[in-house]
Amino acid sequence: MRHGVILAGGGGTRLWPASRRDTPKQFLSLGTGEASLLAATAERLMPACGERLWVVTAASQVAQVKDALPTLAEKHIVAEPAARNTAAALGLAAVHLLHDDPNAIMAAIPSDQHIGNTEEFLRTIELAFTAAEEHDAIITVGIVPTRPETGYGYLKVGSTVAGNLRYIDSFVEKPNAETAAMYVATGDYLWNGGMFFTKAQRLLDEIRKHMPETGEGLDAIAKALGTNQAQKVCNDVYPSLPKVSIDYGVMERTTPVMTIGGDFGWNDVGSWAALADYRSADTNGNVTLGTVVTHDARNNIVVGDSGTIVALAGVSDLIVVQSGNGILVLPRERSQDVKSLVDALKAEGHEAFL
Amino acid sequence: MRHGVILAGGGGTRLWPASRRDTPKQFLSLGTGEASLLAATAERLMPACGERLWVVTAASQVAQVKDALPTLAEKHIVAEPAARNTAAALGLAAVHLLHDDPNAIMAAIPSDQHIGNTEEFLRTIELAFTAAEEHDAIITVGIVPTRPETGYGYLKVGSTVAGNLRYIDSFVEKPNAETAAMYVATGDYLWNGGMFFTKAQRLLDEIRKHMPETGEGLDAIAKALGTNQAQKVCNDVYPSLPKVSIDYGVMERTTPVMTIGGDFGWNDVGSWAALADYRSADTNGNVTLGTVVTHDARNNIVVGDSGTIVALAGVSDLIVVQSGNGILVLPRERSQDVKSLVDALKAEGHEAFL
Repeated sequence: MRHGVILAGGGGTRLWPASRRDTPKQFLSLGTGEASLLAATAERLMPACGERLWVVTAASQVAQVKDALPTLAEKHIVAEPAARNTAAALGLAAVHLLHDDPNAIMAAIPSDQHIGNTEEFLRTIELAFTAAEEHDAIITVGIVPTRPETGYGYLKVGSTVAGNLRYIDSFVEKPNAETAAMYVATGDYLWNGGMFFTKAQRLLDEIRKHMPETGEGLDAIAKALGTNQAQKVCNDVYPSLPKVSIDYGVMERTTPVMTIGGDFGWNDVGSWAALADYRSADTNGNVTLGTVVTHDARNNIVVGDSGTIVALAGVSDLIVVQSGNGILVLPRERSQDVKSLVDALKAEGHEAFL
Repeated sequence: MRHGVILAGGGGTRLWPASRRDTPKQFLSLGTGEASLLAATAERLMPACGERLWVVTAASQVAQVKDALPTLAEKHIVAEPAARNTAAALGLAAVHLLHDDPNAIMAAIPSDQHIGNTEEFLRTIELAFTAAEEHDAIITVGIVPTRPETGYGYLKVGSTVAGNLRYIDSFVEKPNAETAAMYVATGDYLWNGGMFFTKAQRLLDEIRKHMPETGEGLDAIAKALGTNQAQKVCNDVYPSLPKVSIDYGVMERTTPVMTIGGDFGWNDVGSWAALADYRSADTNGNVTLGTVVTHDARNNIVVGDSGTIVALAGVSDLIVVQSGNGILVLPRERSQDVKSLVDALKAEGHEAFL
């Protein structure tokens, strides 16, 4: 059967002050018009997997997941006792799926994306599920690039398997501007949106093969599942698994990897600058959210909570965000610097604001 | 006897979002380190006038004045039933003073200034009080200019009366940069800080002479003072008095006007940019108030409430202010534009934030 697995364990420091340690990005709407990115992701997946929807999250965020998804079965929330990155998290999810359904096909989907065209998304993942059923391979869904973005990893696409399904030659890191322009011009590259489809059993097999320590730990957890020792074993074993991403630990090593290219208004909501990709600007180029007044101000991204007012005069190309007790101002082109700013806040003893 | 009259009726839109309709500038500290500008002004004046301290304020602000100055006698709060500018307000104060003390000498002092050197201030106003006692003239205290400021009016100083006391030849409007530089270079100009000293009777005589309509209204109010009709007459008469400033209505017409130059760290706290005049900058030139973190950011003026954090990265020469539910961002050189921004907020239906 087809299962949807939503990865909801992230922190999202690039969206401070809206995203905080206790309220990461997936629990926010961030102007997408949805209840939260997580709820929107779940709703979007439901037509493809029905009630076989799972969420992997930090143990500390289980309550928030329940709040965001009140109809989700409690046993479909897979809690990580500690953050061990995506290889361990998806391995843990696969263990739970297989306990329920030895033939589980899983879609691994990040919780913190905005997708503009749900119909096209569903058409694409239908193809990906089918490919995962038909092939003993991991199938990614890549995003057809709309610009020479330097902030994403790319998938280099190779020969055709069948129809829209193609082999991936390699995973490539975030390129510089020149390389990114070349990637987009050739048409042989897709953005890596972090979505993939596979038989759960194959994912575990690949983890065992390429990440034996993680594989052994997951096997121990799997063995205890369904017994009264399940939680204890997970708590004992999981926190010591290596912290490795699924891309680095499995995807870049397993063969074959195949891909379906998708074009469905994908946005990773990865920084405040991304707001301009899914919200339209006013006649002065200002993209706003909340009560905002601009006066001789152009091309700014301005965000405020309900109940506050943010007023700008005579400035351009800035990001200005007020959320709760935090106010952020930086140039639009430096939106990636929020991460290092948050690091600075931490270093300077302002943890309470994070 | 010597009396101090503090003018506390202003609005102070240039300091939005800290100053609001219901909390004008004089009730704020604005980083001066005092309880409020008004309380600091009162405390500063007390050595010169003792308990003969008066506050002229809007009827709607009487409660706030009491809160700010709990020891002030209630009958020393002169409430304007409506805002009619400074000529009427100071005339009303003079009427009250004369009812108590026919020989009252009054110092008229704005409530919303910061003064760095109280001792020098007191030395200067001692000279001004003495001059007001000895001469049948209005005595201003002018501020020795420290820079070619274009944001203030100037006093053109003429010949010497005696000692430090000189005649004023004329009141001059805010100059352009070139003219301001000339003013400062000649040494014949002082900033008009809005402070003056006079026999209360002479002020009323001058109002009667140059502003007969106001004079008649004040005479009617004076006649009713001490009767049970006092408040009714004031409420009936005062709101129809002409709205004229004391400078325009009296000071520019009366002769002679004399002045004592003062150099006591005067600052009118007239805009957010003024914060840099009385608070020192950090090594990157940032002048901050509240919890502020800057990262590769220079020469900004940054203000936040207690309990919030304002974080700036990669920006320079900005004013960033958070106060209550308002956030303001504009270039430092445009700090005077806050007034027109507030007008825009009003025009766009955001009165609730003013």
